[in-house]
Order: sequence, then C-alpha cells, then structure tokens
Amino acid sequence: MGADAKALELGLDLSGAAAPLANYVPFVRSGNLLMISGQLPLSGGAVAPAHKGKLGREVSAEQGTAAARLSAVNVLAQVRAALGSLDQVRRVVRLGGFINAAPGFTALAPAMNGASDLMVEVFGDAGRHARTTVGVAELPMDAVIEVEAMFEVNG
Amino acid sequence: MGADAKALELGLDLSGAAAPLANYVPFVRSGNLLMISGQLPLSGGAVAPAHKGKLGREVSAEQGTAAARLSAVNVLAQVRAALGSLDQVRRVVRLGGFINAAPGFTALAPAMNGASDLMVEVFGDAGRHARTTVGVAELPMDAVIEVEAMFEVNG
Amino acid sequence: MGADAKALELGLDLSGAAAPLANYVPFVRSGNLLMISGQLPLSGGAVAPAHKGKLGREVSAEQGTAAARLSAVNVLAQVRAALGSLDQVRRVVRLGGFINAAPGFTALAPAMNGASDLMVEVFGDAGRHARTTVGVAELPMDAVIEVEAMFEVNG
Repeated sequence: MGADAKALELGLDLSGAAAPLANYVPFVRSGNLLMISGQLPLSGGAVAPAHKGKLGREVSAEQGTAAARLSAVNVLAQVRAALGSLDQVRRVVRLGGFINAAPGFTALAPAMNGASDLMVEVFGDAGRHARTTVGVAELPMDAVIEVEAMFEVNG
Repeated sequence: MGADAKALELGLDLSGAAAPLANYVPFVRSGNLLMISGQLPLSGGAVAPAHKGKLGREVSAEQGTAAARLSAVNVLAQVRAALGSLDQVRRVVRLGGFINAAPGFTALAPAMNGASDLMVEVFGDAGRHARTTVGVAELPMDAVIEVEAMFEVNG
Repeated sequence: MGADAKALELGLDLSGAAAPLANYVPFVRSGNLLMISGQLPLSGGAVAPAHKGKLGREVSAEQGTAAARLSAVNVLAQVRAALGSLDQVRRVVRLGGFINAAPGFTALAPAMNGASDLMVEVFGDAGRHARTTVGVAELPMDAVIEVEAMFEVNG
C-alpha cells in the first residue's frame, strides 16, 4: 500500500497545510532533499488549549504525544503540498522535535514518539528516521511542541 | 540586480565574517549545500548591550528584530567569505532561529522575521526559505538570538 | 593515519552504538550525507550522575566538556555502525550541540569544544565542521548535553 493510501486509511486530514507566513515558506526542495519548516500542532489555524503550555505542567504526557502526532500530520500536509503525493517520498531522513518542557520534566522521548510513530505508520520502514529531541524554553503561540523534518524524495 | 549589488545598495557591512573559533569553522560546503554555523548578532566582535539578554525582558521586540537582522547579515558575511560572492547562491534553503526568550514570551516569529526579511531583500524569491524558530534557555555571550543557515549554491 | 587507526590510538570505545529506540533510528544516509540522531553522553546504557543536570549548576565546566566528548564518541560509534569504518568519512559537515544550561550560564562554547576537538583529533582537517550551540531547558534522561551530526561520506 502506498503512503497516500495509508494516510487515507488512517483518516489523516492533510488539508491543513499552513500558508506561508511572512518571508519564509513551509518547504524548500534542494536536489532530492525536501526541508519542511517547523510545524506546530495547529488545527483549523489555531493551537487548541490542550496543546498549549508546558509538557509536564499544563499539558499531560498523553496530550503531548497527541500534539506531536498532530504536528507530524501537518508536516505530511506540507509534503503533499510540495510534491502532490506522499508516494513521492523515498525516505524520512530526519525529524527535529522541540518540546516546551516544564522545569525538571525530562520524559521528552515518549512525547516525540507521537511524531515518529506516525511516520512509520504512513511510510513503513522508509519512515524510520534520524531524530533529535530537546526541551526548549518557549515556542511560538505557546505550543507544546514544534516538529521540523527532512525528506529524501524522488528526482 | 544581483545579490552582491543588492547588498551594496542596502549598505550591508559584510566585512565582519567572524574568524574560526576553536575546532569548528564558520561554514562547510558539501556538494551544492553550504552550511553556515550559528551566527550571533556580533558587531565589531562583540554583542552590543541592546542585543544581550532575553527577548521580552531586557530586549524589546524592536531590538530583537534588529538583532535577528544583524545575525543574518553575519550569515551573509560568511556566505561571501565562503563563495567570494553572494551571486553564487541559488537558494536560501533553511534558517534556524534560536531566541533567548523570557519566560512566557512567545512572540518569537516577529523577531525572527528580521532575519527572514533580509534574505528576501537580498535574494528576492530565491531568499524564501524553510524556517524553524524556537525559544531557548541560554545562548553564547548572552546574545538574544542565534541564526544558522543552509544554502544551495552553484556547482 | 586513517580515522579508524586514530580512534584506536586514542583508545576510544566505539562499541556503544545505542540500539534503535521506538520508531526512530540512530542514523540515516541520503546520498553522500549521513545524519546521526542526537546522542547523549551515555556510557554502558546510562547517563552517569556527573553528566546529569544543568551545566553551571550540578555539572561543572570540566564535566560538561567531558560529557560533550563522550556524546561525540557516541556519534562516532554510530558512524562506524553505519559505514563499517570511520575511514569512509570524507568530512564532518555539522555538529549541533544542545546544552542543558543553568539560568544565566552562558559559557556554552567551551563545553561544546569537547565534541569539536574530538572530531579534529580523529579526522584532522576533515573534522573541522560547522556548528550551532544553544542552551536548552531540558534534555532526555536529564543529560547535560545532546549532540547531533551530519557527515559527508564516500559514495
């Protein structure tokens, strides 16, 4: 099953590719690499209250994982906007996860798994990626997570 | 108008390419990609008091935007040191913006626009880039911002 | 002297390539680029107490530099697991250093030098890399540092 079909089966809403803001754009392709700008857990153009604030304080572990998955859905929405089809992806190369972490809260990897798991659900083995997860001090719109990505795509 | 001419017209001082510190270097090229190390808002080898501390506390929104632009000028200084001319740039691929943010201050995107806007002023549409902006806890020299970059350059 | 021989001469233990966790992997290759996931200062599968907590509070400058070097050793362990030999590396392209910094502690570059210096010890001039160092709020396992890397490798 291709990645587009899999996304359909999973019921992912990939219509939410956020429009370019200011002088940056959601994606840039260079050769076979596709870079996706940091994506927030936006839904309908806003960050839901459940996905605002610090993981381990306002945001529970479960909500954090859901926010990571939603950010990754938004990454995929940008990929489809860039390429026309998720089936043009050869490999998920790297995810960067920036988590708005409460002081002393270090269980960052389980939250970021919400993003990583989605990639493997959609792309199978080609979805397995290098990853860096860190806890940051603040994020735009007070989001609990921001996920950036690099893909290898067909020529 | 080429990018070198545009930089001249804008009056940008690109002479400040910071020298290599320790065992890292300001840029590395691999194939058609040019990676620029994180650049601080250095001017004359120092970070001015107006660009030190946390955005939203010691540093105003306006000063933060100016610091982002200055960091981006320093990125361009490194590009010119690497390539001899900004005209060898095909595309700005990605900027990473790390902002020293005061607790609770989330207006990070407007500050980072200082860097993004400069890229489009200098390179036009080729200056539109993927971007990730996050709020960090501390930065070297207590700078308010650090900007890293990736460019696609002529072969 | 090749990089494998140099690593042997330095007595580096490169046997500690951490196994894949969850749905991400320690490295992904795309073309001539090899991306290494963020590596913690793990030793024997754990972060030693001396490498836990915040640089400038629980962790001294010296311990921070040692933790950066250990994270970089773990990066090299992943490179060898990926390529079979460090001699397949053409160039260290970029290191990203995320340091768990105490409030107000800005001497981040000297700590990160522990990672940068190792690259030059092992690879010589090919070890000189672009670098971004920032202070973050929290890290997985309460580690004091996390180091990610990009290498250019033989085709």
